[in-house]
Amino acid sequence: MSKKIVFLNDEFLAYDKAFIHIEDRGFQLADGVYEVILYQNNKLVDFDEHIERLFRSAKEINLKINKSKIEFKEIFLKLFAENNLDSGYIYLQVTRGKHPRIQTQPKDYNPTINAIANPLKIIDQKDLENGFKAITHDDIRWKRCNIKSIALLPSTLLKEKAENENAIEAILTRDGFVTEGSFCNVFIVNDKKQLITRPADNYILEGITRNRVIDLAKKNNIEVIEKKFTKEELLKAKEVFLTSSTLKIRPISKIDDNVISNGKAGEIAQKLIELYNNYCY
Amino acid sequence: MSKKIVFLNDEFLAYDKAFIHIEDRGFQLADGVYEVILYQNNKLVDFDEHIERLFRSAKEINLKINKSKIEFKEIFLKLFAENNLDSGYIYLQVTRGKHPRIQTQPKDYNPTINAIANPLKIIDQKDLENGFKAITHDDIRWKRCNIKSIALLPSTLLKEKAENENAIEAILTRDGFVTEGSFCNVFIVNDKKQLITRPADNYILEGITRNRVIDLAKKNNIEVIEKKFTKEELLKAKEVFLTSSTLKIRPISKIDDNVISNGKAGEIAQKLIELYNNYCY
Repeated sequence: MSKKIVFLNDEFLAYDKAFIHIEDRGFQLADGVYEVILYQNNKLVDFDEHIERLFRSAKEINLKINKSKIEFKEIFLKLFAENNLDSGYIYLQVTRGKHPRIQTQPKDYNPTINAIANPLKIIDQKDLENGFKAITHDDIRWKRCNIKSIALLPSTLLKEKAENENAIEAILTRDGFVTEGSFCNVFIVNDKKQLITRPADNYILEGITRNRVIDLAKKNNIEVIEKKFTKEELLKAKEVFLTSSTLKIRPISKIDDNVISNGKAGEIAQKLIELYNNYCY
Repeated sequence: MSKKIVFLNDEFLAYDKAFIHIEDRGFQLADGVYEVILYQNNKLVDFDEHIERLFRSAKEINLKINKSKIEFKEIFLKLFAENNLDSGYIYLQVTRGKHPRIQTQPKDYNPTINAIANPLKIIDQKDLENGFKAITHDDIRWKRCNIKSIALLPSTLLKEKAENENAIEAILTRDGFVTEGSFCNVFIVNDKKQLITRPADNYILEGITRNRVIDLAKKNNIEVIEKKFTKEELLKAKEVFLTSSTLKIRPISKIDDNVISNGKAGEIAQKLIELYNNYCY
């Protein structure tokens, strides 16, 4: 395999040579935002939506990004080409750059922009049919989860907790209602076969895959209701699944000690997996 | 001035040459902890307490630090010597180090340890006597503020908001009660001349300066009560002041549009400033 090439501040360079200063605001203060974008069959999936969200997140933290949508597209496509990948995903991160540490935002700064192209993780078809385990946990994160920021320590702690219980995710609850997973959105199907997910408020990230799944469901005569739902509704749901750019659609068949949809992936989840895969290709 | 020297991963090197990899967990996931330690007159103030808290924070996020207390002390003293500083403060940061980005915690890792010695900011005596302005704000941060983590974006947003209103800090409230400032602890004095501060729970960082101030107050016959207090109690207080390693004790004379203690530093705050300064020297 040839050497891995990454993008950092207008340069394409070897992975092993991609360094930032210890006083980068991203390293000292988590002062930055990011995106993860799927690439399937030489196509960036929902590229416009991801870049628009990047700019929205940046605006929320008053971070100016000196690159256009078209420049980002060129960078990403070049990264996949340089790394000989015809599918994979882009990790893109923008921070407020190097500055002597202050607790407020510097007025003059040069953002640090870096992007990495990674191969896709292969998922076993059998596992998808059996569904996965999740745990529930109190949502300990901040109140502005609508910003896709790199201040991710809380999410890593929650995800680690899930992994330690052989689960793929922690489904979070705040004030009795489900918010989302530590790194994904959550859907349930009720006994009327309605698809339910929390409306995009300050407590969840408005997932690009989430929105695409809602769109695909509606176009295929699956009723979708965006409303808050409780932990009890979650545990009694006919089906539960998670969505994110890297998970895509991930059926859940066990939550804590509760079996969901007879311990298998549900039929609506499977239908949506098919629709989403067709959409990506 | 000679070149600034910093510490990074067992090396003392020029500030301009201190780089970490873009896949350091501190840069991508805010997966790290930090301390700020005051150095006055060739003495590290409350060094033991700071390093013990560093290890406590690290333990909370399951981060093993491969350095001893005595090694840290040697590093810090050498940094001040190399940079010709007889007073200042140390910024110390430990992250989980470089690793291909995963949402859980890697099992094998080498922590990235870096330390920077900075000069003290001089504070005007007149300003101290007049007191400073603070604003109030909803505490939007996570529920584990007892961990001194580098996931500080929320705090920078709050502090920036304060600065935009010509205030030095945002005093935060959660569920009606004051927690702390975005980067400091909060004390009030009530009309019985009792000093009140929130008990150290999950919603605040147990400040080293906070604890020292409590100790000094008690030893000097100032009654101290650790209990939760409301925003109303804050605004009606006889005195309000903030504490942190860099602020030390900072009297507040205005909160939002409310004048506190006749628009001047209060007498107990001034007494404690004197006691704390004597303690540091």
